[in-house]
Amino acid sequence: MSSFGHKDLLSIAQLSVSDIELILEVASSLKEIVYRDIKKVPTLRGKSIINFFYEPSTRTRASFEMAAKILSADTISLSASTSSMVKGETLIDTARTLEAMNPDIIVIRHSSSGAPHLIAGRVKAGVINAGDGINEHPTQALLDLFTIKEKKGGFKGLDVAIMGDIAHSRVARSDILALKKMGANVTVCGPPTMIPMDVESLGVRLCYDPMDAIKNKDVVIGLRIQLERQKRVLFPSLREYASFFGITKDMIKLSRPDAIIMHPGPMNRGVEIMSDVADSGRSVILDQVTNGVAVRMAILYLLIGGQR
Amino acid sequence: MSSFGHKDLLSIAQLSVSDIELILEVASSLKEIVYRDIKKVPTLRGKSIINFFYEPSTRTRASFEMAAKILSADTISLSASTSSMVKGETLIDTARTLEAMNPDIIVIRHSSSGAPHLIAGRVKAGVINAGDGINEHPTQALLDLFTIKEKKGGFKGLDVAIMGDIAHSRVARSDILALKKMGANVTVCGPPTMIPMDVESLGVRLCYDPMDAIKNKDVVIGLRIQLERQKRVLFPSLREYASFFGITKDMIKLSRPDAIIMHPGPMNRGVEIMSDVADSGRSVILDQVTNGVAVRMAILYLLIGGQR
Amino acid sequence: MSSFGHKDLLSIAQLSVSDIELILEVASSLKEIVYRDIKKVPTLRGKSIINFFYEPSTRTRASFEMAAKILSADTISLSASTSSMVKGETLIDTARTLEAMNPDIIVIRHSSSGAPHLIAGRVKAGVINAGDGINEHPTQALLDLFTIKEKKGGFKGLDVAIMGDIAHSRVARSDILALKKMGANVTVCGPPTMIPMDVESLGVRLCYDPMDAIKNKDVVIGLRIQLERQKRVLFPSLREYASFFGITKDMIKLSRPDAIIMHPGPMNRGVEIMSDVADSGRSVILDQVTNGVAVRMAILYLLIGGQR
Repeated sequence: MSSFGHKDLLSIAQLSVSDIELILEVASSLKEIVYRDIKKVPTLRGKSIINFFYEPSTRTRASFEMAAKILSADTISLSASTSSMVKGETLIDTARTLEAMNPDIIVIRHSSSGAPHLIAGRVKAGVINAGDGINEHPTQALLDLFTIKEKKGGFKGLDVAIMGDIAHSRVARSDILALKKMGANVTVCGPPTMIPMDVESLGVRLCYDPMDAIKNKDVVIGLRIQLERQKRVLFPSLREYASFFGITKDMIKLSRPDAIIMHPGPMNRGVEIMSDVADSGRSVILDQVTNGVAVRMAILYLLIGGQR
Repeated sequence: MSSFGHKDLLSIAQLSVSDIELILEVASSLKEIVYRDIKKVPTLRGKSIINFFYEPSTRTRASFEMAAKILSADTISLSASTSSMVKGETLIDTARTLEAMNPDIIVIRHSSSGAPHLIAGRVKAGVINAGDGINEHPTQALLDLFTIKEKKGGFKGLDVAIMGDIAHSRVARSDILALKKMGANVTVCGPPTMIPMDVESLGVRLCYDPMDAIKNKDVVIGLRIQLERQKRVLFPSLREYASFFGITKDMIKLSRPDAIIMHPGPMNRGVEIMSDVADSGRSVILDQVTNGVAVRMAILYLLIGGQR
Repeated sequence: MSSFGHKDLLSIAQLSVSDIELILEVASSLKEIVYRDIKKVPTLRGKSIINFFYEPSTRTRASFEMAAKILSADTISLSASTSSMVKGETLIDTARTLEAMNPDIIVIRHSSSGAPHLIAGRVKAGVINAGDGINEHPTQALLDLFTIKEKKGGFKGLDVAIMGDIAHSRVARSDILALKKMGANVTVCGPPTMIPMDVESLGVRLCYDPMDAIKNKDVVIGLRIQLERQKRVLFPSLREYASFFGITKDMIKLSRPDAIIMHPGPMNRGVEIMSDVADSGRSVILDQVTNGVAVRMAILYLLIGGQR
């Protein structure tokens, strides 16, 4: 098996195609452990992982904890609300302090774009970006790739639509970078206030009509409307957003017959995605969650292996 | 050993007498492990338990964590305040997301009655109700039964008084169901505003005079005044409540000479129970806590064993 | 190896010189484990440690968790915000409840001076004071001693300055007691409003001029300005505090050429310590953090060993 060669996982931007292929390949070989009766292997015994979440999280934190525990690593979970961040320490000092306890990996989620990168340059431990501001959420993009590959076999020439608040979504950004890198065609669609100005420079097709965006796609990715990240109101009301951009069964009929529906969660049912779509046979939303554990196992394994 | 045959532990209502006897028997055989110098057995190695507490808890969460760790299971603890529940995800979606990470057990405490049942029908994992609204708290009732059996030898014909806020107590409800099932006689006592209208249909005797309620009882169970659960004021003042219904040493003198005093905790000393009663030789309140670990070990063991 | 002979670690005041020497010696022998590729030894397998933090903490809680996990102990972490403390239970009842689950150690941080002592007398478990009000923070003092010994070889005749808010700092109090016990000379320095009235009775030299205080010292310990602990304003502004008492490179030039700079963290950079001092080659602030893990491993080991 070829080696990973990175200390940190900060972004999709930093990864080569073969890096991504390696992660997916390792995740694929580790996934069966998640289903074992005794889901525990000694691979990372005696390794320690600090999860530092400056923003609330259920699925990502639980997913990293589950991945670590299956590999027998020790985990320490800190959240901003119970930490000395309330005491005014700088992020770098907090990171260097944690580093001085000699963890192997620091997983960080932060509301500021670039926070994980800032830390990574200052600590020996591997740093994993679990979401930074509106910048990137690389492990989400990797589990999305894993899920797409599992269902579709590959990426070359695949037609993918990403629907919703492209501008405020770190998932969208990481997904676009990852899908383009792997050779897929990406169409983004949302109200004009939710499309970043330079989005076409990323090589995507821009489309304001959801019907048109979804038409003949192999993969449709819905994005969460992240009200908490919007400084000002970007559409008149949730109801109006839902009626124009919420993904409905009728829209999905326009996609390819074997198209899959994805969503990073947590979902606002009835807003960006209708319940009958989320719960349909085409939805792979829960597969994404399961694959998240496998992909994070792979990343932990590769980063810690890379330090040896 | 006979098998348990349930996927979930949602309520006392769901359990047969032989189910309860099995749980108590297994708990009895596991209890000695809690006192070992090295309190760790490999029984549930490679099994994972997610503790999801939507309400604050010290004793119940710590008890489940301790039980899981003694059995070598992995635990992931989530609380509503640090989770994506703040992002508006539905309970069922949260549960299905956790389920997709393939845990063996989800332990849930929730302020809404029926929340664990809602989840249980939608996930493969075993679901344990760690308290749902004012409905049930079955593991508390089981540890209460365990403690009573340990001290009194059995339940048939035993006279038990449950004192306090019967209407707002999930512990009272589960205790009544459990004690009646096992053949004990149950008297409930509290101010009229704290007695549910249909309580006698549960087969209990209703009594508004605490002296009369406690008289000749083998077991006296005090209940916490749960101010946080009361929509309106149910008595003029805490002092007035305490002076009428607070369990005093004088009241206890009316019980059988070998009567035991129980309380699920956390206690409001000087309100529903006086300190000299709580700390007397008859109090088995701390035995209840210890037995809670053994009973939860038994439940984890039986539920996960049942999946094999 | 001689035995420790204490059930609890509540204060530096309780420790003899040979107790302290034993802790430092054990910490020294355990420290290399923190740097191992597989940092895990089975020493405390099957032992359980409850971390109960009533005040926010990153470094101390993470340090205790890391120490426990390296020694293979199980940890349960509770914080006041998610616990039944919000329900009005007394501290002693909470402690006795945790005790009834049979943990080996309870680590407690509390805003009230004396809280750990109150508990220690009522539980069989070993109690470790992780900071109580403005009283003591003994594990911090022990890791400070460890760091000083590592860098300076010993304590006899060593000249140490402690700079800042002496009156409101439990670290200062524990450091003074520890350093005096080990034979060092201690000078304390801060604005008059931050010096306790009876400080000279502890055997320290008092000095209001930071230049004079730092002059010819072997060790300079900066203290955090703990705004959250001050009932009233003790100096006109942070800027004014910083300009008089903030430790600068120019001040440090007055210390011995091989003097070391310490700080318990979290630092307010630019207030009590300037960044170029904190980040200079003389700073051993991150060594303190690393040594904290080793010292806490030693304390856990000695306290649990002492129970056998």
